Amino acid sequence: MKSIKQLREKKNTAILLIHCDDKQGILATVTEFLNENNGNIIYLDQYVDRLEKVFYMRVEWELEGFAIPTNKIGEYFDTLIASKLNMNFKLYFSDDVPRMAIFVSKMSHCLFDMLSRYTAGEWDVDIPLIISNHEKLKPVADRFDIDFHYFPITKENKKEQEAAELELLKKYKIDFIVLARYMQILSGDFVSRYTNKVINIHHSFLPAFAGAKPYHAAHERGVKIIGATSHYVTSDLDAGPIIEQDVTRCSHIDTVKSLIRKGCDLEKIVLSNAVYKHLQRKVLVYKNRTVVFS
Amino acid sequence: MKSIKQLREKKNTAILLIHCDDKQGILATVTEFLNENNGNIIYLDQYVDRLEKVFYMRVEWELEGFAIPTNKIGEYFDTLIASKLNMNFKLYFSDDVPRMAIFVSKMSHCLFDMLSRYTAGEWDVDIPLIISNHEKLKPVADRFDIDFHYFPITKENKKEQEAAELELLKKYKIDFIVLARYMQILSGDFVSRYTNKVINIHHSFLPAFAGAKPYHAAHERGVKIIGATSHYVTSDLDAGPIIEQDVTRCSHIDTVKSLIRKGCDLEKIVLSNAVYKHLQRKVLVYKNRTVVFS
Amino acid sequence: MKSIKQLREKKNTAILLIHCDDKQGILATVTEFLNENNGNIIYLDQYVDRLEKVFYMRVEWELEGFAIPTNKIGEYFDTLIASKLNMNFKLYFSDDVPRMAIFVSKMSHCLFDMLSRYTAGEWDVDIPLIISNHEKLKPVADRFDIDFHYFPITKENKKEQEAAELELLKKYKIDFIVLARYMQILSGDFVSRYTNKVINIHHSFLPAFAGAKPYHAAHERGVKIIGATSHYVTSDLDAGPIIEQDVTRCSHIDTVKSLIRKGCDLEKIVLSNAVYKHLQRKVLVYKNRTVVFS
Amino acid sequence: MKSIKQLREKKNTAILLIHCDDKQGILATVTEFLNENNGNIIYLDQYVDRLEKVFYMRVEWELEGFAIPTNKIGEYFDTLIASKLNMNFKLYFSDDVPRMAIFVSKMSHCLFDMLSRYTAGEWDVDIPLIISNHEKLKPVADRFDIDFHYFPITKENKKEQEAAELELLKKYKIDFIVLARYMQILSGDFVSRYTNKVINIHHSFLPAFAGAKPYHAAHERGVKIIGATSHYVTSDLDAGPIIEQDVTRCSHIDTVKSLIRKGCDLEKIVLSNAVYKHLQRKVLVYKNRTVVFS
Repeated sequence: MKSIKQLREKKNTAILLIHCDDKQGILATVTEFLNENNGNIIYLDQYVDRLEKVFYMRVEWELEGFAIPTNKIGEYFDTLIASKLNMNFKLYFSDDVPRMAIFVSKMSHCLFDMLSRYTAGEWDVDIPLIISNHEKLKPVADRFDIDFHYFPITKENKKEQEAAELELLKKYKIDFIVLARYMQILSGDFVSRYTNKVINIHHSFLPAFAGAKPYHAAHERGVKIIGATSHYVTSDLDAGPIIEQDVTRCSHIDTVKSLIRKGCDLEKIVLSNAVYKHLQRKVLVYKNRTVVFS
Repeated sequence: MKSIKQLREKKNTAILLIHCDDKQGILATVTEFLNENNGNIIYLDQYVDRLEKVFYMRVEWELEGFAIPTNKIGEYFDTLIASKLNMNFKLYFSDDVPRMAIFVSKMSHCLFDMLSRYTAGEWDVDIPLIISNHEKLKPVADRFDIDFHYFPITKENKKEQEAAELELLKKYKIDFIVLARYMQILSGDFVSRYTNKVINIHHSFLPAFAGAKPYHAAHERGVKIIGATSHYVTSDLDAGPIIEQDVTRCSHIDTVKSLIRKGCDLEKIVLSNAVYKHLQRKVLVYKNRTVVFS
Repeated sequence: MKSIKQLREKKNTAILLIHCDDKQGILATVTEFLNENNGNIIYLDQYVDRLEKVFYMRVEWELEGFAIPTNKIGEYFDTLIASKLNMNFKLYFSDDVPRMAIFVSKMSHCLFDMLSRYTAGEWDVDIPLIISNHEKLKPVADRFDIDFHYFPITKENKKEQEAAELELLKKYKIDFIVLARYMQILSGDFVSRYTNKVINIHHSFLPAFAGAKPYHAAHERGVKIIGATSHYVTSDLDAGPIIEQDVTRCSHIDTVKSLIRKGCDLEKIVLSNAVYKHLQRKVLVYKNRTVVFS
Repeated sequence: MKSIKQLREKKNTAILLIHCDDKQGILATVTEFLNENNGNIIYLDQYVDRLEKVFYMRVEWELEGFAIPTNKIGEYFDTLIASKLNMNFKLYFSDDVPRMAIFVSKMSHCLFDMLSRYTAGEWDVDIPLIISNHEKLKPVADRFDIDFHYFPITKENKKEQEAAELELLKKYKIDFIVLARYMQILSGDFVSRYTNKVINIHHSFLPAFAGAKPYHAAHERGVKIIGATSHYVTSDLDAGPIIEQDVTRCSHIDTVKSLIRKGCDLEKIVLSNAVYKHLQRKVLVYKNRTVVFS
């Protein structure tokens, strides 16, 4: 059924994500470098944080006809541009399809949404692995023909289980992880292996209602709007760089149960939008905030 | 896998949907009837259109302990209340699970969303049948273990094919139909068999951009917001009673392709919300408009 | 210029706001009482909190033709209905125009918005008094011909100044107070004189970013959505019952200054919506939450 | 009272709005031109329509220290850059405060909102003139000390009255016009004098409900969302390039009157946002669509 991937377009492009201290001429320097080497730019967006004096840029160009061999682009760009300008950069190629693992517990709505997009070919990604601390969602993994590994977690076995999970992630060559309502806190050690590579969905409008049972807390507080937040996981719980948020209206009529129902729809769309932006290499993290290119 | 229906709660309730000319005392009369017969009301909402002088009501009560036998409630209510007040009413029982058919063509996002909810047990419904004018989405039906019937439609065979579809719908005891981006117009004859029982999703904010290729038209017009509309199908194309609408922002940056991508997320949520309201017996149609109880 | 109040309609109605323990028959009892006495109901909404087992209701009927004299309605309803059912109720008459005072500091956007609505006749209210801890907005008060009183507040004089303000509020027969970005915390004693009668606007999506400088905090946190919250003031800072909230999107591009600019538009609409609901007697406070009838 | 303009910042900058056929190197050429002449860029945004192959750019830089004298910038840029690249450009200076006229009829909400912002110093603009086809809002103009001219329009006198208005606009040196719910259609001849310089607010989500009485039409159609659209006026009614749109939810409960009330809040914010973008020189019209820079 993976043949339904008719939406996946192979364009063979290179993508540069850049940030550095802002000075005059950076934008001209980078675009000239690409122009001189016959790189046809198909996307360019830049942003200058005038307060922090930081320059950010995302540029994407076609590899066909580009004067520098693909496997040399990184080296050339580093030598000729980045080192001189003291620039941080990441280089991606569109035909490197990233490999993603999904961590779940018992709720299936985000999992279904992502597997549906994957199966329909909406996303340029491979999803070879699902990890869970419960067995409940194995049938969903089976239905979509994806390997499912069960790692029950207790206070006692957490260290060993995480080690085994890391081993498995390595074996599956996983590039990044999506926590799809995974109800376990990853250890700082685990997180540090995947910096800005673990995407979580929190079921509230952060920083409101961080921690457990946000819908109960929202109901108790009597808010008129609920939300969901997708962010990169850091060692501080629910405090990592925010990628995407959305909200929906509620009222006194809503029960905790109806808030959960409405919230689930928010969660799956917000999480999938965040994953999509990540897959498009449009998210750049700087000082616990994100630049999300349009 | 249907055993994941842990969210489905069997409450054994009766639901009355009522509308009639507004006069003093209707609300009191209905609630008294239920109270006198020991009906524990768990939901009551009413609305009076003061301009048209029409009274609308939805009331739900527990069957346990209700003095009138379940199979006599309709007759008693009609005799004692409805006939006297010249009232239109529909009576539903929560343990009558409605049977729904899905019509699709080639796009899978709405189909996946509904089948995911169904499989996860979000909805009190049975979905035994998918009908399509293309073979493309059969693998999706297979993946969710649902019967898939292929009815290619041409100008010449439309009448016969619709007759065959109607036959099949009858055989499967289908109560209502959801058009999940089904790219065929149903004949007036077909629609008249399922009045207010065919739910469509149109990929625009109706009445803007009715008809074909709304995202192309939206791009051409340069709108700053796009939308999706779910409505009951009538013999007038895209002009039936609206159940639910939602919108999302766009800008000059958006291409037709990116509008489609954003729009697909809208469509699936709007359609699923409309189906959910329909399943909850919360939609009442009157003069080409809907009352949607909260 | 107050003659532009062409939108103010004098309907001469009575409004009952009710809450009590839920039991069978309350709704029928109240509507029968009105029907029997020839009260033509023009608005009825009710809501039952099934968890807390509390019944809430707002009903409005025309006084013309009502069998009970206007000045006896409260007594009759209390004796015949409320006492028997252990009901809390408030009775209002549409021709009692409430008197509102506005407290401001230096920002004028909410003040302008409310005075514009007042002058244009959008609201059924009298606004005879503006109080401020700064002199800056006196010209705005003058422009709209409203008395402006200046009460500079210091730690030392706060008690005396609040006493003087309370005196003035009494003199002006003020029914309720709107804090339109008033940057002073009212003492618990002051607040207790106007329980659920002081409406504040906080420039964040509460409970996120309570306290000072919420736009700075929102920028620092890197949120993708900002909000505004209108609530009744209690002795707990920014923790009173929420009446209305709204949000708007932001991004990495936004500076604190642009967040403030976007936020000001939110604040004025959210505050004015909350005041409008309060004026319509559609807000009912129960256990630090609001029921806001539609 | 105009001294409350504390928010107006004089930065003395130059702004270029550019569009031309896309080719390699345009961005580099323009930024190099500014860099070489010591122009400190404080804003740069660009966008390429890859389908139409058009390049759009807005760049703003500080005049202090710029090598080319302010009154020669246009000439130099034209000679050295624009002519060679066949570029359309407009050059603005931040200290040229544009002069705006407001046209109104009887509804005051948009007028109040704009005059409030103007008086509070939110906008870098002068508003010396209000024109109306009714006398009703003269008191509002007086209250804000702005000249008000009354031009009653009939089929017979329309040509002469428009001629007199054009004369007056010339006398007041008006740069652009805002139609704040002005219920008259400007003649094609009038509009052609102010191409992309007449901003209108239409009280619907265009292209839905163009023309008269959109709230009545929305109510009749039973939509679940209403909207407002601000656009430049062209000779085609309600069909000009859209600058800004927004929407709000409604339901079966809404009457035409309540739709109007909700819609008025939308209209004033949407119109003011459009005017703000226009004042910031962030709107570029191309083929009946707008590029609105962020």
